[in-house]
Amino acid sequence: MGGDKGPAEVVRGAANALKDIGPSDTLILVGEEKSLNTFAQKAGILGNPRIAIRNASDVINMDDKPMQALKSKKDASMLVALDMVKSGEADAMFTTGNTKVLVGAGTVKLRPMAGVDRPALAAILPHMTGHFVLMDVGANPESAPVNLLHNAVMGSLYAQAALGLEKPRLGLLTVGTEEGKGGDRINRAHAMLKKLGTQINYIGPVEGFDIFDGGLDVVIVDGFTGNILLKSLEGILYMLQGLVKENAGYNPLYWVGGLALLPILSRMKHHLKPEQNGGAPLLGLSALVMKAHASSNHRAIRGAIRLGREALSHNLSVRLREAIACANALVSTPAATPENKE
Amino acid sequence: MGGDKGPAEVVRGAANALKDIGPSDTLILVGEEKSLNTFAQKAGILGNPRIAIRNASDVINMDDKPMQALKSKKDASMLVALDMVKSGEADAMFTTGNTKVLVGAGTVKLRPMAGVDRPALAAILPHMTGHFVLMDVGANPESAPVNLLHNAVMGSLYAQAALGLEKPRLGLLTVGTEEGKGGDRINRAHAMLKKLGTQINYIGPVEGFDIFDGGLDVVIVDGFTGNILLKSLEGILYMLQGLVKENAGYNPLYWVGGLALLPILSRMKHHLKPEQNGGAPLLGLSALVMKAHASSNHRAIRGAIRLGREALSHNLSVRLREAIACANALVSTPAATPENKE
Repeated sequence: MGGDKGPAEVVRGAANALKDIGPSDTLILVGEEKSLNTFAQKAGILGNPRIAIRNASDVINMDDKPMQALKSKKDASMLVALDMVKSGEADAMFTTGNTKVLVGAGTVKLRPMAGVDRPALAAILPHMTGHFVLMDVGANPESAPVNLLHNAVMGSLYAQAALGLEKPRLGLLTVGTEEGKGGDRINRAHAMLKKLGTQINYIGPVEGFDIFDGGLDVVIVDGFTGNILLKSLEGILYMLQGLVKENAGYNPLYWVGGLALLPILSRMKHHLKPEQNGGAPLLGLSALVMKAHASSNHRAIRGAIRLGREALSHNLSVRLREAIACANALVSTPAATPENKE
Repeated sequence: MGGDKGPAEVVRGAANALKDIGPSDTLILVGEEKSLNTFAQKAGILGNPRIAIRNASDVINMDDKPMQALKSKKDASMLVALDMVKSGEADAMFTTGNTKVLVGAGTVKLRPMAGVDRPALAAILPHMTGHFVLMDVGANPESAPVNLLHNAVMGSLYAQAALGLEKPRLGLLTVGTEEGKGGDRINRAHAMLKKLGTQINYIGPVEGFDIFDGGLDVVIVDGFTGNILLKSLEGILYMLQGLVKENAGYNPLYWVGGLALLPILSRMKHHLKPEQNGGAPLLGLSALVMKAHASSNHRAIRGAIRLGREALSHNLSVRLREAIACANALVSTPAATPENKE
């Protein structure tokens, strides 16, 4: 029931997603039954045996808070969908709704997977020659070193599944590439990442200007900086579009130039809304949860559902659990464990 | 003696800066005397009564570390210049050299101004309708709430001096605009900023997509996130330029469009190297220290010197000291002081 464009857009995306997923897969639309029936009819999928509708009488709003919503909106569509994933009635869930409630309620209902403290949102962004995974983009603003470690392990596996890479090159985003720079949190995360040896393809600490040049496939950063970074990049692309349009107004050369460039900038901006590029999984929970940008259109929603299906096919959750267990074992020398948990 | 283009470029910038500064102002070139004489002759300023040369036999390199440099390179040009500011022989200093050594050695030699714990670098960036001050862009990666408070006070005064604004609109950069979001550090900084009342024009917490839309004149962020943000923005502009050039190769419409757009992107990238936009002051030390990007050309160096002269004319250091004293008094209720210092 979420999203700036309303549930009709989500249903339209789901209808198109039927073309991508397996012939025995079912999509369950969760929300106000009457509206969903109407939208499903419009989208030509009412009565389709691969579409089910589950009634949920309430809706999470953008200003709802997690704990309050869990108490007072038990029958909200997002919470009902989480319950369905928890009970095994669904294998994965997808939403365009309130991120903060999704992270909070998802953590309470599904619990983090064994060995993980906190889930993280993994966005896919463009770089010079392809795409890379940036995480965490906002699930956990106060990431501890051990969270950065887990995000590195999960981000590497996700890059394998989503970008089709065998040994994704991973960097730890900080303010200087020499060891000892970037503060205690970075130094401790760096030390743990080095202990993983060949489990991941860790390049080392990287700086802001390294992330778009095509040399990295996974960039790990705390959720505070990651969220600000993602939103600022979106902001600067809006600004560039505005400048292009403005310059087009009084310079004939820019007029042609500017109009020709708009599609490029528009595509870039589109890419930079990570959830529009297939949706961002909330990695580290006991089941698969996909988040898409509130402004997603039906194409983005279709992409997110396809990506979720792909993650299930890759058995991502099982692989994540195994990799996390292995990583925790590698770093848990008696000296390191207590302080890394701080 | 610093800078990617070598000291000849700095001397050329200084020669041009003579046109901007007052008729009784003197520029003192600090570095290896023999080289400086040669470069000054080339730039046509050897023997000019407003140019002095001070010999310094050593040079700080980009991989030098502050404490080590302070011990083993006492006669390095950057350290000699800091000594000259300390002794009052110079009113301000300017460098294109190693930022980390500048922050470290500047703090040791000049000391923070009364009431300030840590200095911060203030960059000027473009937004939709003009420019804004972003600080800290990397002097203090682990900014405490009280550092964010001081940066807000200093950033506001700097925006008045550098951007000519009467009541600069100030935002605290975080991951959500509701109170209580963004973690303990942000909440405590927010509470202190509110206590300043009319001393600053505090808009409130802001998010990444707010900073380029023209609604803010000063954006406060910790030095870790600020540095990553600044460098990532530079990176994405390089990438856009690359994409434009690439698209120009095989699409005739983009060919015209792309070439026309290059100047815009180039100007944007230029703006985003903050020190090229007049240099970035290291605010919060007992005297004025200006930093310019290592890749600065003579125009950027001229701009930085002019901006430094402007700051001296505005009596920026005295104003900063007064404003900091006032702010510290406003926030230092008995209950708040001890924990804000943490």
